[in-house]
Amino acid sequence: MSKNFNIDHKRKDRTGFQEIVFGASKSVEQISAIINDFKEKNHNALITKVQNKKAEKLQHEFPGSFYDEVSQIFMIGEFPSKPINGEVAILTAGTSDQYLVNEVYYTLLFFGKKAKRFQDIGVAGVHRLLENVNEIKSYKVLIVIAGFEGALPTVVGGLFPQPIIAVPASVGYGVSKGGKVALNSMLSSCANGITVVNIDNGYGAAMAALRILNNR
Amino acid sequence: MSKNFNIDHKRKDRTGFQEIVFGASKSVEQISAIINDFKEKNHNALITKVQNKKAEKLQHEFPGSFYDEVSQIFMIGEFPSKPINGEVAILTAGTSDQYLVNEVYYTLLFFGKKAKRFQDIGVAGVHRLLENVNEIKSYKVLIVIAGFEGALPTVVGGLFPQPIIAVPASVGYGVSKGGKVALNSMLSSCANGITVVNIDNGYGAAMAALRILNNR
Amino acid sequence: MSKNFNIDHKRKDRTGFQEIVFGASKSVEQISAIINDFKEKNHNALITKVQNKKAEKLQHEFPGSFYDEVSQIFMIGEFPSKPINGEVAILTAGTSDQYLVNEVYYTLLFFGKKAKRFQDIGVAGVHRLLENVNEIKSYKVLIVIAGFEGALPTVVGGLFPQPIIAVPASVGYGVSKGGKVALNSMLSSCANGITVVNIDNGYGAAMAALRILNNR
Amino acid sequence: MSKNFNIDHKRKDRTGFQEIVFGASKSVEQISAIINDFKEKNHNALITKVQNKKAEKLQHEFPGSFYDEVSQIFMIGEFPSKPINGEVAILTAGTSDQYLVNEVYYTLLFFGKKAKRFQDIGVAGVHRLLENVNEIKSYKVLIVIAGFEGALPTVVGGLFPQPIIAVPASVGYGVSKGGKVALNSMLSSCANGITVVNIDNGYGAAMAALRILNNR
Amino acid sequence: MSKNFNIDHKRKDRTGFQEIVFGASKSVEQISAIINDFKEKNHNALITKVQNKKAEKLQHEFPGSFYDEVSQIFMIGEFPSKPINGEVAILTAGTSDQYLVNEVYYTLLFFGKKAKRFQDIGVAGVHRLLENVNEIKSYKVLIVIAGFEGALPTVVGGLFPQPIIAVPASVGYGVSKGGKVALNSMLSSCANGITVVNIDNGYGAAMAALRILNNR
Amino acid sequence: MSKNFNIDHKRKDRTGFQEIVFGASKSVEQISAIINDFKEKNHNALITKVQNKKAEKLQHEFPGSFYDEVSQIFMIGEFPSKPINGEVAILTAGTSDQYLVNEVYYTLLFFGKKAKRFQDIGVAGVHRLLENVNEIKSYKVLIVIAGFEGALPTVVGGLFPQPIIAVPASVGYGVSKGGKVALNSMLSSCANGITVVNIDNGYGAAMAALRILNNR
Amino acid sequence: MSKNFNIDHKRKDRTGFQEIVFGASKSVEQISAIINDFKEKNHNALITKVQNKKAEKLQHEFPGSFYDEVSQIFMIGEFPSKPINGEVAILTAGTSDQYLVNEVYYTLLFFGKKAKRFQDIGVAGVHRLLENVNEIKSYKVLIVIAGFEGALPTVVGGLFPQPIIAVPASVGYGVSKGGKVALNSMLSSCANGITVVNIDNGYGAAMAALRILNNR
Amino acid sequence: MSKNFNIDHKRKDRTGFQEIVFGASKSVEQISAIINDFKEKNHNALITKVQNKKAEKLQHEFPGSFYDEVSQIFMIGEFPSKPINGEVAILTAGTSDQYLVNEVYYTLLFFGKKAKRFQDIGVAGVHRLLENVNEIKSYKVLIVIAGFEGALPTVVGGLFPQPIIAVPASVGYGVSKGGKVALNSMLSSCANGITVVNIDNGYGAAMAALRILNNR
Repeated sequence: MSKNFNIDHKRKDRTGFQEIVFGASKSVEQISAIINDFKEKNHNALITKVQNKKAEKLQHEFPGSFYDEVSQIFMIGEFPSKPINGEVAILTAGTSDQYLVNEVYYTLLFFGKKAKRFQDIGVAGVHRLLENVNEIKSYKVLIVIAGFEGALPTVVGGLFPQPIIAVPASVGYGVSKGGKVALNSMLSSCANGITVVNIDNGYGAAMAALRILNNR
Repeated sequence: MSKNFNIDHKRKDRTGFQEIVFGASKSVEQISAIINDFKEKNHNALITKVQNKKAEKLQHEFPGSFYDEVSQIFMIGEFPSKPINGEVAILTAGTSDQYLVNEVYYTLLFFGKKAKRFQDIGVAGVHRLLENVNEIKSYKVLIVIAGFEGALPTVVGGLFPQPIIAVPASVGYGVSKGGKVALNSMLSSCANGITVVNIDNGYGAAMAALRILNNR
Repeated sequence: MSKNFNIDHKRKDRTGFQEIVFGASKSVEQISAIINDFKEKNHNALITKVQNKKAEKLQHEFPGSFYDEVSQIFMIGEFPSKPINGEVAILTAGTSDQYLVNEVYYTLLFFGKKAKRFQDIGVAGVHRLLENVNEIKSYKVLIVIAGFEGALPTVVGGLFPQPIIAVPASVGYGVSKGGKVALNSMLSSCANGITVVNIDNGYGAAMAALRILNNR
Repeated sequence: MSKNFNIDHKRKDRTGFQEIVFGASKSVEQISAIINDFKEKNHNALITKVQNKKAEKLQHEFPGSFYDEVSQIFMIGEFPSKPINGEVAILTAGTSDQYLVNEVYYTLLFFGKKAKRFQDIGVAGVHRLLENVNEIKSYKVLIVIAGFEGALPTVVGGLFPQPIIAVPASVGYGVSKGGKVALNSMLSSCANGITVVNIDNGYGAAMAALRILNNR
Repeated sequence: MSKNFNIDHKRKDRTGFQEIVFGASKSVEQISAIINDFKEKNHNALITKVQNKKAEKLQHEFPGSFYDEVSQIFMIGEFPSKPINGEVAILTAGTSDQYLVNEVYYTLLFFGKKAKRFQDIGVAGVHRLLENVNEIKSYKVLIVIAGFEGALPTVVGGLFPQPIIAVPASVGYGVSKGGKVALNSMLSSCANGITVVNIDNGYGAAMAALRILNNR
Repeated sequence: MSKNFNIDHKRKDRTGFQEIVFGASKSVEQISAIINDFKEKNHNALITKVQNKKAEKLQHEFPGSFYDEVSQIFMIGEFPSKPINGEVAILTAGTSDQYLVNEVYYTLLFFGKKAKRFQDIGVAGVHRLLENVNEIKSYKVLIVIAGFEGALPTVVGGLFPQPIIAVPASVGYGVSKGGKVALNSMLSSCANGITVVNIDNGYGAAMAALRILNNR
Repeated sequence: MSKNFNIDHKRKDRTGFQEIVFGASKSVEQISAIINDFKEKNHNALITKVQNKKAEKLQHEFPGSFYDEVSQIFMIGEFPSKPINGEVAILTAGTSDQYLVNEVYYTLLFFGKKAKRFQDIGVAGVHRLLENVNEIKSYKVLIVIAGFEGALPTVVGGLFPQPIIAVPASVGYGVSKGGKVALNSMLSSCANGITVVNIDNGYGAAMAALRILNNR
Repeated sequence: MSKNFNIDHKRKDRTGFQEIVFGASKSVEQISAIINDFKEKNHNALITKVQNKKAEKLQHEFPGSFYDEVSQIFMIGEFPSKPINGEVAILTAGTSDQYLVNEVYYTLLFFGKKAKRFQDIGVAGVHRLLENVNEIKSYKVLIVIAGFEGALPTVVGGLFPQPIIAVPASVGYGVSKGGKVALNSMLSSCANGITVVNIDNGYGAAMAALRILNNR
């Protein structure tokens, strides 16, 4: 069969960043063909949510590629050697959200931004957040990740003036299994001007931060 | 038609408190008949969620009865003249929850407990809660009411050692309309040992506090 | 009864903007007391989603106040006489979303920003959007409102580089009644870096735009 | 046990096409017995959604049978040697939908129609669709497949006059996991006269196209 | 304020039919302005789901306009004097669906097609359908309307070869209140090639029929 | 317009009972026409869920008709003068379910069965049920009605050997608003062999009892 | 640890049938202990939904036990040698429902009733049902099983006078995955007096049939 | 990478009990690092919901640790040698809930309380509960666990005066799969003053009991 995809290589001209590939529902063969299409154009490629077994085969096929097991991000090319520091802070409520922290972190790094991670500052021990107020205030964009009841963005929203992008994590059980409670909590936040992306969409939050940083 | 109800007048012997009547889905005639049944036994009567139009008719039929428009609580008899103070604190996130504050307050008063109200100490301005920590610590039971994203009980749970009963309020719009987001947030709370009652069940929270206070 | 609210007057110091009041679930008496609290501090006040009947009474009580029937926004004070132009574009899919267009528009105006409205450029006639590409490109932040299937942000996201805040409208019937389909469509968008606020939360979208504009 | 099924062999007389078998919830033994029933009547047989492990056993039992791993379609008999070309166009938003593209494609081929595939023309890069407008206009029926937010049928519906059958794909994560967002988006489409089939029901879309083509 | 809508008057050139207006969430003023826009272009106008009170005012403003109370369809202009007969059959399960029967009927009439109505042939008395098999077979397109459990399209689908467009009605109570059960039943139908539109979208079903009839 | 309904007058020959009419979504004109159709055949007619305003008009049109405001049942004809006693017991958890008690009661009476009502024997005071065990054992069929958590059928199911038909009532608030919790509780009952009908379908429960009683 | 269960051995005295054990969420050790408890009382034991791996171990531990892989029913003891014939008919829409057919069949057999199976008479080919009307009429109770859209009970309900117990099967995909569409269809049925049990609760349907047959 | 967590070691000072770790979504490496952090502070550690495979590795790494396979609780340190008896009773509806019984039991033991277990006293055989009334009355707090329809807390609530914490179990199938029916039943309970925790949150119920017992 002939090529069954059609990468939007002009997206960078329109939006300022290239197309990123969603890996979870594509086969190794499909991803491999897409990577080769990027390579022909001399582009780097970032593929998100590549399951471990598929990543193993791809790493074998593309030596020198980068893969982070925790976030399942796969990258062809090199990360920038001197990424810009001090623009994005990633705040999380717990260790269980590490997979999203990394998805945000490496997506930003791919586009030349080095984020700072503030982890495990959940609101059940609100002093951990209060202790970091001054440092957090120096970042341009805050990305806040939380599962379970997703309360962290509300407290953050009441303390800081920056743009806040909330990312619900599919971490929880019982009613909060799958992340819908965290999502809906964030959407309903009493704090002003919180914006939200899809559950587990760390990559999307990173892109939203880029839209802000690229258009000042 | 013969009497179509059967009040559980022995409930007090078993559980320590008498039966309370749910008014929202009963007609004026039904409530009136039930009240007379209580009066025959020389019992006071508490009826919850009596809509305004029905309350007007009942007040006319039972002069001297008590009705609070905000919470729609209707009472036959007298509140105790010397209720016990200092045992229950009611914490709320906003003015919109007043109807539940009052439902809790008057139910407790009916059973001889005078609660203290701490209102509008929502987590989007967490300092308002922190300023009251010492006073709140002196109460035996905390009842925490919140609508929208329902984050208040989590922050409270991380700050205080007492029993905490969380009451979701049906205040919100969009995804939080009807109170399910607040309910699910409270059930998913990262704070330890928070218990929850049904949406808008201020009366139930008061009864749960009574179970704790009566059985020490 | 004593004052049952506690306005967070220090919020501006922390976040750069004052507290805004949610009017839908408050009584005329509660809103009136809150307004007087603002007036004592010589602050203007913005109250969202004030139903028409309540607004009538408030306008009588506070002569010179502003009320927009379409968006149900109520304002005490004066809009800035020279608001800043050219920073925010509001894009909508249809006439039915006018109530949200206005909620965004007047909230921004309250904070000194005059937004431009591009209305009825829905994707079922995509040429209407394409004709405006160059003008839209000149704005700093795009707020995109849509009900029904909520597809507009996706097409916008593929055409423009700016920060995009999507607002789902509770306009639709059958499966799209209440706005959940539009919300979920926006959260699932294939376009990169779209952020989303709660259904009908035009006010929140305006605040998110302010967070971006105030922190460049 | 005696035969526990009862194939509706007269369906072709009534509706113009024979019964097709749903394979996903049947055992190898059940499918095998059903195939033999078709073979006794000298009919070809098409079985949809046959999982890979079951297909392996069936291929061993029925040499010469056809199986497509991507769509999990299993076929006994021969595809028509000269299928009719140029009547159905299959439009898709991304590579991840390939399994449905193939389910539609082979079902149509089984009934003698050769469809044309237009893949990866998603609305986040709307120019890819606009470039193909003239060619797509020449087909009699358009089948449009999309997962995630399912916006493609709306844009297609605004550009073309033909009958449009939208197929939601269970491709997505977070809120769009399972395909309900795509389904509801398609049902809510602002474009006129879009019809929809069940999530992942590529076969049903093909049959709906046949009903149109057979009854002109 | 300047005109806040932008009718897609070129839609007819692209799709073969003009834009139809959704009236339920528009004000009388908005509808009136839109009608005048159509009138300036000498077009007829069809507005769906116009609530009775709004229709009264519009009829006063536009003498000679047509309004059907049952379906809430409002029309400016004249229905075709010689509509085409015998192409579309409307099948319904009960009297309660009359509002959708009429929405389909008048939408088709607006576009020059006179449909035949077969009403109250629900599957709890399947003989009523069987008695009409031969007559129904002579139509080009079948539109099948049902509320409650929505079983009629399945039985129809097993008996007839034509294109079938199923319309779920928001008629029912308990679990079937709002029409979702009928919708999901139709989407899950065991009969081959049934397509479905949104709940209460009689107008959409009519447009889908037109797409079929116009493109033979 | 010609008659748009088609009463299934032969249903009695097939199933043993005549067609009953669902009144809630029919207009007064539609109900009136249907009644006249029954009267022409000299049949009595039972119409369920006729709202009060519509019933008033119908009572005026059909003098001597019966209407029960509580259950909204409307009847043309006479109830049997000597209905059969002692076959059906109706058990309920509270006064709020009276509307369903009556719907069951009058439907059974229409078909010649006089049911016995055991009301307000909810499981929060389980002794009220235990006191009636012997009497309840003498009935042929038990119909158990409950709203809120719907626990009564489970306790009944563990105590009695008869056929049990559970009817969920749309009585409750918060999570139990609308009756789905009661429905799902009844479907999940740990007690053996409980069957369930739709929320608020008292009429259906009566018909199910008749199917049992008529076919012994 | 001491015995952590407490079989209700007196249930037979109260309800006429012994306790049946739900196997799916119990460990092999728990089931084994329960079986021994039954054996000590010289009772047979029926355990439902025992997964294949657990059943293998149990069969090894209890030689001579019966296990049906399709329905996952496990039985200790002997089925009655002369079960009663001709009382229960099991009607199904398709081969995929075989697991429920068998669960009903063996549960009834355990209690001494031999059911007759009418399989694959789905309503998409309604003639298959009509051909069996006379034979089906001779049974006392009809148990009707269906997945997908669950339409079979409605058609059956319109044709037969007997008690009808509908069992929704978790067979389907897309919107009908898990069986909720079939369940809700059955609950909403336009046919009179259909009762319903939980999804996949074949055992419960059998017990409901027994309640009817044992209490005539 | 540096330490990505931040244990709230001061929680005990504020709330009276130390932080407990949620193990289900953490990797072995993450749990191991957290345990070492506790050990450095000479604290015991309790980790909930540690899947069997992960527990095996942890037991190898931390010899002498405690692991209960049924509840998946992992503990570092020693349980108190003389726990307090007679304060908490655990009541359950069936053997399938054993995993939650143990989670409650070992969490309480970790904090020095030895609970008494009353198992399999479900309401389908209500006599099993009634036989234990006097003994149960002697406990300070009742924790009631139930899956399926979750009716046990309601009956318990009507019989006893103590604080009642209800725990919904994710035991069930069909509509009750996942535990939402049990949860909603408990929240809707007609019995007074029942409080509820998240589905499967045995640990949370134990902590709520501690809050009550520690603050008398």
